[in-house]
Amino acid sequence: MALKGCTGSALAEALLRPRTVALVGVSDDIAKTAARPLRFLRRAGYGGEVYSVNPTRATVQGEPAFASLSALPARPDHAFILTGTDAAIAALEECGRLGVPVATILAGGFSEAGGAGIEREKRLAEIGRSYGVRVLGPSSIGVVNVHERLVLTANAAFAEPDLPEGGVFVASHSGSLIGAMLSRGKARGVGFAGLVSVGGEVDLSVGEICEATLDDPKIGGYLLFLESMRNADALRRFALAAAERGKPVAAYKLGRSAEAAELAVSHTGALAGEDDVADTFLRDCGIARVESFDGLLEIMPLLNRMPVKSVRHPAVGVVTTTGGGAAMAIDQLAVRGVRVAAPSPDTVRRLAEVGIAAGEGRLVDLTLAGTRYDVMKAALGVMQTAPEFDLVLATVGSSARFQPDLAVAPVIDSAREHDKPLAAFIVPEAPEALLRLNAAGVPCFRAPESCGDVIAAAFNRRVPRPELATPPLPVPPDAGSGVGRTIDEAEAYRLFARVGVPHAPVAVLTVGEPVPELPFAYPVVAKVLHPDIAHKTDVGGVALNIADAGALSAAMAAIRDRVEAARPGVDVRRILVQPMTRGVAEVLVGLRRDPQVGPVVMLAAGGVLTEIYRDRALRLAPVDRATALEMIGEVKALQALAGYRGRTAGDLGAVADALVAVSRLALLDDVTVLEAEINPLMVMADGQGAAAVDALVQLATADAPAQSQEDDTEPRSGRNR
Amino acid sequence: MALKGCTGSALAEALLRPRTVALVGVSDDIAKTAARPLRFLRRAGYGGEVYSVNPTRATVQGEPAFASLSALPARPDHAFILTGTDAAIAALEECGRLGVPVATILAGGFSEAGGAGIEREKRLAEIGRSYGVRVLGPSSIGVVNVHERLVLTANAAFAEPDLPEGGVFVASHSGSLIGAMLSRGKARGVGFAGLVSVGGEVDLSVGEICEATLDDPKIGGYLLFLESMRNADALRRFALAAAERGKPVAAYKLGRSAEAAELAVSHTGALAGEDDVADTFLRDCGIARVESFDGLLEIMPLLNRMPVKSVRHPAVGVVTTTGGGAAMAIDQLAVRGVRVAAPSPDTVRRLAEVGIAAGEGRLVDLTLAGTRYDVMKAALGVMQTAPEFDLVLATVGSSARFQPDLAVAPVIDSAREHDKPLAAFIVPEAPEALLRLNAAGVPCFRAPESCGDVIAAAFNRRVPRPELATPPLPVPPDAGSGVGRTIDEAEAYRLFARVGVPHAPVAVLTVGEPVPELPFAYPVVAKVLHPDIAHKTDVGGVALNIADAGALSAAMAAIRDRVEAARPGVDVRRILVQPMTRGVAEVLVGLRRDPQVGPVVMLAAGGVLTEIYRDRALRLAPVDRATALEMIGEVKALQALAGYRGRTAGDLGAVADALVAVSRLALLDDVTVLEAEINPLMVMADGQGAAAVDALVQLATADAPAQSQEDDTEPRSGRNR
Repeated sequence: MALKGCTGSALAEALLRPRTVALVGVSDDIAKTAARPLRFLRRAGYGGEVYSVNPTRATVQGEPAFASLSALPARPDHAFILTGTDAAIAALEECGRLGVPVATILAGGFSEAGGAGIEREKRLAEIGRSYGVRVLGPSSIGVVNVHERLVLTANAAFAEPDLPEGGVFVASHSGSLIGAMLSRGKARGVGFAGLVSVGGEVDLSVGEICEATLDDPKIGGYLLFLESMRNADALRRFALAAAERGKPVAAYKLGRSAEAAELAVSHTGALAGEDDVADTFLRDCGIARVESFDGLLEIMPLLNRMPVKSVRHPAVGVVTTTGGGAAMAIDQLAVRGVRVAAPSPDTVRRLAEVGIAAGEGRLVDLTLAGTRYDVMKAALGVMQTAPEFDLVLATVGSSARFQPDLAVAPVIDSAREHDKPLAAFIVPEAPEALLRLNAAGVPCFRAPESCGDVIAAAFNRRVPRPELATPPLPVPPDAGSGVGRTIDEAEAYRLFARVGVPHAPVAVLTVGEPVPELPFAYPVVAKVLHPDIAHKTDVGGVALNIADAGALSAAMAAIRDRVEAARPGVDVRRILVQPMTRGVAEVLVGLRRDPQVGPVVMLAAGGVLTEIYRDRALRLAPVDRATALEMIGEVKALQALAGYRGRTAGDLGAVADALVAVSRLALLDDVTVLEAEINPLMVMADGQGAAAVDALVQLATADAPAQSQEDDTEPRSGRNR
Repeated sequence: MALKGCTGSALAEALLRPRTVALVGVSDDIAKTAARPLRFLRRAGYGGEVYSVNPTRATVQGEPAFASLSALPARPDHAFILTGTDAAIAALEECGRLGVPVATILAGGFSEAGGAGIEREKRLAEIGRSYGVRVLGPSSIGVVNVHERLVLTANAAFAEPDLPEGGVFVASHSGSLIGAMLSRGKARGVGFAGLVSVGGEVDLSVGEICEATLDDPKIGGYLLFLESMRNADALRRFALAAAERGKPVAAYKLGRSAEAAELAVSHTGALAGEDDVADTFLRDCGIARVESFDGLLEIMPLLNRMPVKSVRHPAVGVVTTTGGGAAMAIDQLAVRGVRVAAPSPDTVRRLAEVGIAAGEGRLVDLTLAGTRYDVMKAALGVMQTAPEFDLVLATVGSSARFQPDLAVAPVIDSAREHDKPLAAFIVPEAPEALLRLNAAGVPCFRAPESCGDVIAAAFNRRVPRPELATPPLPVPPDAGSGVGRTIDEAEAYRLFARVGVPHAPVAVLTVGEPVPELPFAYPVVAKVLHPDIAHKTDVGGVALNIADAGALSAAMAAIRDRVEAARPGVDVRRILVQPMTRGVAEVLVGLRRDPQVGPVVMLAAGGVLTEIYRDRALRLAPVDRATALEMIGEVKALQALAGYRGRTAGDLGAVADALVAVSRLALLDDVTVLEAEINPLMVMADGQGAAAVDALVQLATADAPAQSQEDDTEPRSGRNR
């Protein structure tokens, strides 16, 4: 039996606006973690009903307690289960029997513990499904709705009175981080609508929770702390819906390094993915990704003021009272690829009209005169109305510390008067100035690093690609497990041809039979053709520069002998022959169905160096031509293809067409392509196209039986004989 | 006439411990910048004599003022000149006439202003030299000696009472940054011995000032904020002397990005260099370079506790109470190449003995139990005595905010009991905990980014290379100006041969004359040989794969025709011929005399990609073989040479030998090599050596006249005919 649990606004109500909550296993000993939620709810003045459940005590923290959930006078909307692991499973089942819509589980000891823990987590999922109770956690430290004074959490950071109210909603895989967000936010005047510790996502995910709250008018934007990309589909749905409503979403994701990705696995039992795949996913969903934890707290005002636009090379103008400080900020912007532009001659002229000598450089340095309100105000007015800038950054020196009102007033006033985004980088340890700027909604930073991080992340934000929403691209259950079926190179070319990728001419010959006349000229290359041999060179399966039919016949026999020696048990019968093809460059074009985020299309330069430098561009599939051209611009090694230093320019249009075509393999409905790789795609000189000269494809095993497709290959290759 | 100004300890006395100071141009209007030094000195309770000099007022800020420096009752040790640009020059001259040992100049308007400003700066230098007055600035906002209460600065940040006393000495090119250092330092319990705004370095440089203070027992270490590497020799001398005394030095250097480097130029008139050259210089001098401004403030306690050692792949062990926070820190360590290691089985066993289940991962996660003193203390004790770690990082969650004493006590106590470096990453907004840790000298961080930055910088610190100190390598005055003399390829090979770099066999032939028998076999390559043609391929000056003498004769004529067509006026007579050489890889080995830091040796993989990825290793020249091997390990593309993925391994030993040899070009005393490049050095299979197959050398024009060397070439090439 499976009951459908609450979703959408009903879920948001029970999770974040319950009229009644139950604290299962709440402790009377206020030194204990399990005592905190009751204390915090009472201190905050939560208006709903709170039931304490404790089988061993008649009272808890001076309030009457109930022996069990069943003993409660009414059904709670939300049960926070504070017990140990085994008791939590039993409590969840009781929630199910009683029809409690949402239960949050604090305990760990589930899938992240491995072994029996995985079984315990399956049990949680099963209970949730069968009774229709929605589960938050396990390993969730609880939820907070600041506006409703619902401080339903065991996180010690919420011990403070006066939680800062505002429009920011936080969802975090890690429970400790909601406390860090609160403490940092409070210190700099960031106000929150809600904070949710999502934990292990046995049921409720970051995406589903956030999506359920989208209609809440008190929520202006979302900050996510992600440990992995699990449940990416729900996250994508949420992100697209948020973009439609104009509510910005920003994320900090752990796992830039392989070490941290591995850690995220052990920490909450998530699967780790490659970090640039996550990068691609977030950008394609319109989520701004920051690199620094400070940046996560600082980005919202900028996202609120900066519409997502398609400025290719946006520019920042900088006004400062402190040369050294501004130089640090500019350094941090520039290393992240953000262009800092000098004022145009016209802007220099307009600055001169208000008495400011802008000089020659990128920087409008007002020196100490900039501490005067009128000077700074006038400079910002000119810069914010100058067309060459997409954002103006005001750097404020130590006056922000000693005369905070005076120092930030021109920034606040100018931000109010002009539409163009204005941000402030102020000296550290100027808390008053930070609070004022944040209260006025002016993006502000206190470290050059997060200043660069946030502005780069905001500029990199893209309009989500709507084509990704429909059709929902299936992720087969065996994806990523490596158990797909590899098809041979000839079959792979036919699959690529279906979506429109050209390949070098092909003939399939049989070893031992006479060599027929080929449909193309010598010299040729001969390659072993066998679905079990993916890496042909490794087993001596390739011969290059074959001059004539006699040499080809000998090469075919030699290939058979080498391969059969290297791979005992493999019977080599067929050889694929192609003309020797030369181009101006080689690239790698591929599609991979990532187990978390789905089909991803990749472009890289060929060869070992690309692997070493990890120089590649990724997008969620499918892509259109404009996106494909954008990808080409991102691969550094392809600068050479664009005619770098006098080299012959390659046909980049043909590369783009191939990318579009390969990405559409994800949309085929008769076969599920797990992985497809053209390596290399030979790129000819500009205007002369490109052609696949090697190909590797893996299909889901569930697709059409291997044998029938194999059979299909023979007659076609026969035509080439 | 030139008088020698004070140096060494006499300089330090006058600059930082003057008995009498004069404030030239001090203002009575306390709103003005030029009023601040008097106010600050009085508020701080400076014990020496302060003379106000103001030609227009009898009193300044209620104190008697003197009309001029000459009118003072005694000669001041240090004059702080607060006037405008022109008046400052006059005041400096008066200082000179009166024999004032040190003058600090606040005004700008010198070389950074260009044109007449450059002349004005020359005048400053001339006055300083001729009178023997040492000059700090221009654009210096002053100096502070915290222990002496000498607050001789116009930086507004020093308006605060209670400047934090300690052992840190700060020298900064930027004046605003000494204020930022003070404010940040105070907030987290960092105490200072002194802070100097060095400004434009017309005379006194960061290096000379710091070196002069090295014997001050109150100074424990140095933090530098650098805008450029100008006066690198003084900086190197200081760094080597500081290392001898065991006083650590750390630096933040602007200019990671080209934009900021350019800005540093306009800001203080410095020359900008390439950032990785600066990186190399700092590391070779034993200076730890941080990437974040927060990191600069945070690194000193760690450098104090961590001796410089030559651990190749140091490892960090992590103990935490908060999984999410620790994961952020580990991510930031790992992206910077710092290894985070799991406890060994023996350590896991020892942890179990004190009741801690360490689990399987890299992280010892104590969860909430870690907030108990005994649990955290026991865990740290085991980790600090585990041989697999070079540093232990304790991550402390929100308990640091709410129970600072309790939360940091086990960290402080364990740091005291064990020698192995222990650092703490604590939640943000826990100022009390930060102050306690800093007071106890425990390295501590409040952001994951600076935690990763500082630990990586400390691990990357090296013992300075003593061979760099002697002989002082000359930087000729025309270095870097591009006006050196290029010698031809044949002559370049002979120069490389002098230091021991092998090259491919060479014959020099004359176009139009019969082709003689070559001392090597065909096929060969022919290249135009002319000192004015550096980039031979660009002008059609190269022919490859020439099969025999007839083809060679034709190729030589064709080369002459192409080159003379491409470069009218060039008379092509000589052709250099070499056998076609194949290796397993090509690398670029070069030496360049950087105008700021001197001779630098470089290794990169050949080809366009290396340029795109900027994948190169640098060291100050000369290098020994161990350093050369280290460099090979740093170039990512050379992973392929080490037998990456089954490729043939190249002869890396031969590459190292070539690096050592090329670096010794810097030591030749009969010629000054401005630039020398072997591109490529052909690397053979392991054990088979390497050979230069192209070479480009530029000598200083001051060296032996061009013509005589040209003449010298002829007979030798004649021998090859």
